[in-house]
Amino acid sequence: MGGIRSAGILAVGSELLTPFRTDTNSAWLTARLNDLGIDVRLSAVVGDDAADLAGALRLALARADLVVATGGLGPTSDDLTRDVAAAVAGLGMELDDAVLAKIRARFERRGRPMPPSNARQAQVPAGADVLENDVGTAPGLWIPAGERIVVLLPGPPAELQPMFDRLVAPRLQALGVGRKIRRRVIAATGQPESAIDEAASPVYRALEAGAVPISTSILASAGQIELHLSAAGADVAAVDRALDAAVERLAAVLGPVVFSVDGRSLEQVVGEALAARRLRIAAAESCTAGLALARLTDVPGSSAWVVGGVVAYDNAVKIGALGVPAALIESHGAVSEPVADAMAEGVRRRLGADVGLAITGIAGPSGGTPGKPVGTVVVAMAGPGSSAIVRTLAFAGDRAMIRRFSVAAALDLVRRTLA
Amino acid sequence: MGGIRSAGILAVGSELLTPFRTDTNSAWLTARLNDLGIDVRLSAVVGDDAADLAGALRLALARADLVVATGGLGPTSDDLTRDVAAAVAGLGMELDDAVLAKIRARFERRGRPMPPSNARQAQVPAGADVLENDVGTAPGLWIPAGERIVVLLPGPPAELQPMFDRLVAPRLQALGVGRKIRRRVIAATGQPESAIDEAASPVYRALEAGAVPISTSILASAGQIELHLSAAGADVAAVDRALDAAVERLAAVLGPVVFSVDGRSLEQVVGEALAARRLRIAAAESCTAGLALARLTDVPGSSAWVVGGVVAYDNAVKIGALGVPAALIESHGAVSEPVADAMAEGVRRRLGADVGLAITGIAGPSGGTPGKPVGTVVVAMAGPGSSAIVRTLAFAGDRAMIRRFSVAAALDLVRRTLA
Repeated sequence: MGGIRSAGILAVGSELLTPFRTDTNSAWLTARLNDLGIDVRLSAVVGDDAADLAGALRLALARADLVVATGGLGPTSDDLTRDVAAAVAGLGMELDDAVLAKIRARFERRGRPMPPSNARQAQVPAGADVLENDVGTAPGLWIPAGERIVVLLPGPPAELQPMFDRLVAPRLQALGVGRKIRRRVIAATGQPESAIDEAASPVYRALEAGAVPISTSILASAGQIELHLSAAGADVAAVDRALDAAVERLAAVLGPVVFSVDGRSLEQVVGEALAARRLRIAAAESCTAGLALARLTDVPGSSAWVVGGVVAYDNAVKIGALGVPAALIESHGAVSEPVADAMAEGVRRRLGADVGLAITGIAGPSGGTPGKPVGTVVVAMAGPGSSAIVRTLAFAGDRAMIRRFSVAAALDLVRRTLA
Repeated sequence: MGGIRSAGILAVGSELLTPFRTDTNSAWLTARLNDLGIDVRLSAVVGDDAADLAGALRLALARADLVVATGGLGPTSDDLTRDVAAAVAGLGMELDDAVLAKIRARFERRGRPMPPSNARQAQVPAGADVLENDVGTAPGLWIPAGERIVVLLPGPPAELQPMFDRLVAPRLQALGVGRKIRRRVIAATGQPESAIDEAASPVYRALEAGAVPISTSILASAGQIELHLSAAGADVAAVDRALDAAVERLAAVLGPVVFSVDGRSLEQVVGEALAARRLRIAAAESCTAGLALARLTDVPGSSAWVVGGVVAYDNAVKIGALGVPAALIESHGAVSEPVADAMAEGVRRRLGADVGLAITGIAGPSGGTPGKPVGTVVVAMAGPGSSAIVRTLAFAGDRAMIRRFSVAAALDLVRRTLA
């Protein structure tokens, strides 16, 4: 065998071709195969139809060294993957007594007789290796198809993932091409994707042309931009060194917008900065209504540095629970720098925190005015020093996006202030 | 042409075969094609490789009446979809002067000369119809391929979606098979998927065997179970009547766990119940730390029935901001029915709301004890009547799942109490 360099992935099941189910296995397998140095050339979803499945399997075998198919290994007549894969590989089916005994024992342990249909799951293509399923009844199969390999895995992720990691990955590694794909992620916030891309693009070209060519891609979500770097090679240490140098170079070009180069989330970075200085934070949220605190407390152990907060959706709560002067709201409006300041200071003092964070804004769809359109958001931070810091921002997008942008901007204000 | 009954979808772009990008166009197109009565037989992702793309396109054309391909219509040499589709359909390429003029004008409006590479986007297979792109430079194409049709659409969703709705859907409808696929969703909460499936399964079979056969599938997420019903037919009114009858029958079998049969979310249902009774709600959240309020305020206009709340992550906040007696926390623990009760009553009174909702629990991964393991959650509701209602629940899952289950249970407590 000349080494497994390329793969095709098939997801089998008519439910995956409706708007209600999405195949998540293919993305998971792509990451795992990449880790083994195997590129994915194509990926397909086919229904429970023998001709469709055979066509897709033939195409994938024509284009890639390895085909991994998921799903359609159950006991019912809808489950065709075993039979079709055997037919395409030109192999007959045999009853595997050991598999049958195992399935039967599984049912007996639960005090139930094995339904006759489950015997289908013990049919194995001649020459295939059975991959044991510790979690469910459907065994996987490793099927030689000439110079190529077809691997069949059960559809449920809880069955597929341990089976792949325990039984498939080591075999692929043994057949491997002796190269690995390695990756890094640079995470940034506070600037639009286009500005970050423009700043980074002169470096991209140099990285692509280096001794270890590094490819980059940029991904944006509301409030966060990620640069993904990847490189492949047989000398893993050399690849890692090249990637680390590239990360350093890009981070230097991008400057303080970068908050993480090691996979940490913004809330983790903020939490660690607070914990390192023995500070505890409280938040007063209006338009985000708890999203900032929910995100900070996504971090396990965050009770060490989060006190709590107040969701001041109604102005009466800003006044009553946070001590914002009614006259301040009257004269400047609820979405204003003086009110955000007073909210941050109020939540800090009333909840006995070291740092107070405040968010007030207009998430829409209604509530905008010519002077303060939808997307106007004010974030403020009070403490640990004496003077509060406040920023007025303007975001584009729908209600959910504006709320996510606002949370990212507020957390980033804490990060930059503590840095 | 014998009518378009089936489709294949191809997404083109090597970036879609990495772990970092996911193709979202195929799911969107699946929903739209289903609405037109067209079943999706297979869906594939291929990289920027002419042979892979040609193979996938030939397979899709062999298996379906219509192929919709997205992406790979840009101006660079990576963008192969136009050329490959023309070759597979056996058509030569011609320069379309009108398309070229339009692209050139688009650049001129922005005060820039058209880069020469963009002229590639004006190459059109002979006999194809150009689908104008109002948003970007890449026009779409409607290409006859014998008895079949290949439609090429640009990859960016903001370009693809209006192009499909405005230019492709009406043509498909005109060629259509004269049937429509119609759907309903029954949303429930408060019972596990297996219990709901078991209760509904005798009805499924009757629905599948009816004069208008109705197919069902069940989908579960943390705290919510959905039954999806679909049926197809030429007589849309008859299909709708059959679906409405099926919804009524299933809702009767399932009982009060059903909170919506018309697409409304749980937070919308709760909000409408509050608004109808002119009640306003406040929430005190410990382990969920703002998620319940964030979810309630996802609903535009929720300021009419949400006052705000307190995130009482630290016990000092439960005592100071909510008035929970320290002795109560001392004797019963922060995760207990008396404390949840006091939190609900405290937030109701202090924030001047009609209804107070409280959530306190152990989301993990640490913090569990033998008596109160991770996943123990207490939800309580105070008002609008005199006596508070409290429930102790036990959830399985990770930190994020336990938090989502807790929010769903708390919102459902309000829904059921107001019903």
